[in-house]
Amino acid sequence: MTTFTAPTIASIENKVLRQQLQQIIDLKTKPLGALGRLETLALQLGMIQGTTKPQIEQPQIRVFAADHGLTKHGTSAYPSAVTAQMVYNFLQGGAAINVLARQHNIELKVVDAGVDTDFEPHPQLLNHKIRHGSRDALVEPAMTEEECLAALERGMTVVKELPGNLLIVGEMGIGNTSAASLLLARLGNVPIADCIGRGTGLNDKGLQHKTEILKQVLTQHKDVKEPLSALAALGGLEVAMMAGALIKAASERRILLIDGFIASSALLVAERLAPGVIQYAIFAHHSVEPGHIHLLKLLNAQPLLDMGMRLGEGSGAALAYPLLQSACAIINEMASFSEAGISEQNS
Amino acid sequence: MTTFTAPTIASIENKVLRQQLQQIIDLKTKPLGALGRLETLALQLGMIQGTTKPQIEQPQIRVFAADHGLTKHGTSAYPSAVTAQMVYNFLQGGAAINVLARQHNIELKVVDAGVDTDFEPHPQLLNHKIRHGSRDALVEPAMTEEECLAALERGMTVVKELPGNLLIVGEMGIGNTSAASLLLARLGNVPIADCIGRGTGLNDKGLQHKTEILKQVLTQHKDVKEPLSALAALGGLEVAMMAGALIKAASERRILLIDGFIASSALLVAERLAPGVIQYAIFAHHSVEPGHIHLLKLLNAQPLLDMGMRLGEGSGAALAYPLLQSACAIINEMASFSEAGISEQNS
Repeated sequence: MTTFTAPTIASIENKVLRQQLQQIIDLKTKPLGALGRLETLALQLGMIQGTTKPQIEQPQIRVFAADHGLTKHGTSAYPSAVTAQMVYNFLQGGAAINVLARQHNIELKVVDAGVDTDFEPHPQLLNHKIRHGSRDALVEPAMTEEECLAALERGMTVVKELPGNLLIVGEMGIGNTSAASLLLARLGNVPIADCIGRGTGLNDKGLQHKTEILKQVLTQHKDVKEPLSALAALGGLEVAMMAGALIKAASERRILLIDGFIASSALLVAERLAPGVIQYAIFAHHSVEPGHIHLLKLLNAQPLLDMGMRLGEGSGAALAYPLLQSACAIINEMASFSEAGISEQNS
Repeated sequence: MTTFTAPTIASIENKVLRQQLQQIIDLKTKPLGALGRLETLALQLGMIQGTTKPQIEQPQIRVFAADHGLTKHGTSAYPSAVTAQMVYNFLQGGAAINVLARQHNIELKVVDAGVDTDFEPHPQLLNHKIRHGSRDALVEPAMTEEECLAALERGMTVVKELPGNLLIVGEMGIGNTSAASLLLARLGNVPIADCIGRGTGLNDKGLQHKTEILKQVLTQHKDVKEPLSALAALGGLEVAMMAGALIKAASERRILLIDGFIASSALLVAERLAPGVIQYAIFAHHSVEPGHIHLLKLLNAQPLLDMGMRLGEGSGAALAYPLLQSACAIINEMASFSEAGISEQNS
């Protein structure tokens, strides 16, 4: 396969800065460590931005939408048509992610990565359609080499010249939990049964059927091991585009606020294609989609929230967003012991 | 002991409204239940307010500050003087709770419930001082009957005519984890060793000493069983005032956003004095103060956040606050399947 040339991902490590940040946090008017995860979050944000005064500016959500060839085999609880219907819902402002983005002043746009419907132009819709849905992974790779590389490139294009310094990649694609499960199984060497869940709401019979189909897909592509070819064979157009977006964003030292199962699978791919991307990632939440816990373990991730959600769209990330703002505010605005004239701890 | 006459606490239960809320949530454009805790939170907020359109208005934080007689026995890592120093920090806007309250536009005032320092008048400081710190619970009840009842009444006064419909009670009081531990041990029948933690940062030796002292306090007051007399003997002025505030707020159907260990101990007292208060409570976070997990279990509570925090001040509650706003926004603003013209699930 043609290779993918990833941009350089800088290391965020800087011992001097790390010590400076830790000291600033430790001297704030609170017992040592009393703000818990908020403190480690402030530290990570400072390291990502290379500053003792981390600040979030013009946060962006891009929701990548695509259809999946595999759904023709009945792997999802909802018909494929719902992908396009939900795109219209996003454009009308009625979906969960619209509500949460408005609440937190996060700019939201939808990226057509490969929906099986042609849309009229719309100011909130970016047309990067590679094809009308991915191919049927049961009989051929979900994407050809060219399509997969094009999707990665388009993802990078979406991020290039994006305002702000924080990116949430959300997604909508009936059938995309299957793609995420397949990528986790192959790239993470996790048994496929552990990677599969009910997606948007399969019953027991549907879940069993999905498992059978995904096993057959893995058999069909049993020789595919490398990240890029695995992405092409097993992934989806939106997953590939999300991976490209994450890689580009990390190369520009943006904060990556990672949503649930699908976004994490895109991050897994991104990290394999461009090692170091994960340093820029903050994991927003535990999804209840069963594969997510294995994926989080594989990524050594400790998400901020555990709200029993499994919606996608970037909704878990948008929900966690104010915690990042809090972490920045704590480090920038809290008084130190000496500023406030407060006694030290008893020895 | 003179009895405490609690105001009436209305039941929030209303089967018709519960069904209406559930149906509204279920018809939103998302798979059934996909927003997890956000959905149950929206339901509870609707039930508390008795409406299908819950809305948070003019949220309020009151930070109750007091000193504790027991600290003379070395039960805390910080000197008692820090209580007053932190009150000045709150008034100057430099504490964690100031930062978080500003972030979320929550009005913050400090209530002097019994700090061992006299403060100059300040627009953000409410003077409800009962006495200069509680009494030494090792030799007498921390409060007399009259002082305890006065603290409860003052707590109710603080809430009366408060604007808005959501209350966070925060606290500052060197030594108040001891009071909370003692109340949990006595009112919850939890072994005292399980109720005790390092507070603001005791070392092993300090922790052992604190445990010894608290055991002696429980022995000293071994015949005290009733909620009101337990509060007087073992509690603190700020804990009693917080309990009064929570009772009054619940009687006015306000949302109670509950912070960590100390706030939860005040809620335990409030619930025992005025059964039903807990229906109005939303638990913001798991504190890492060890007693909190037992207290949460006793209250059958499932907090929203688990951020490894143990600061108090109302900081965990303020951090969780935007999740409540999200729950309201979801139920009020998301489109339904029929509004968005989206296909139903496959059968």
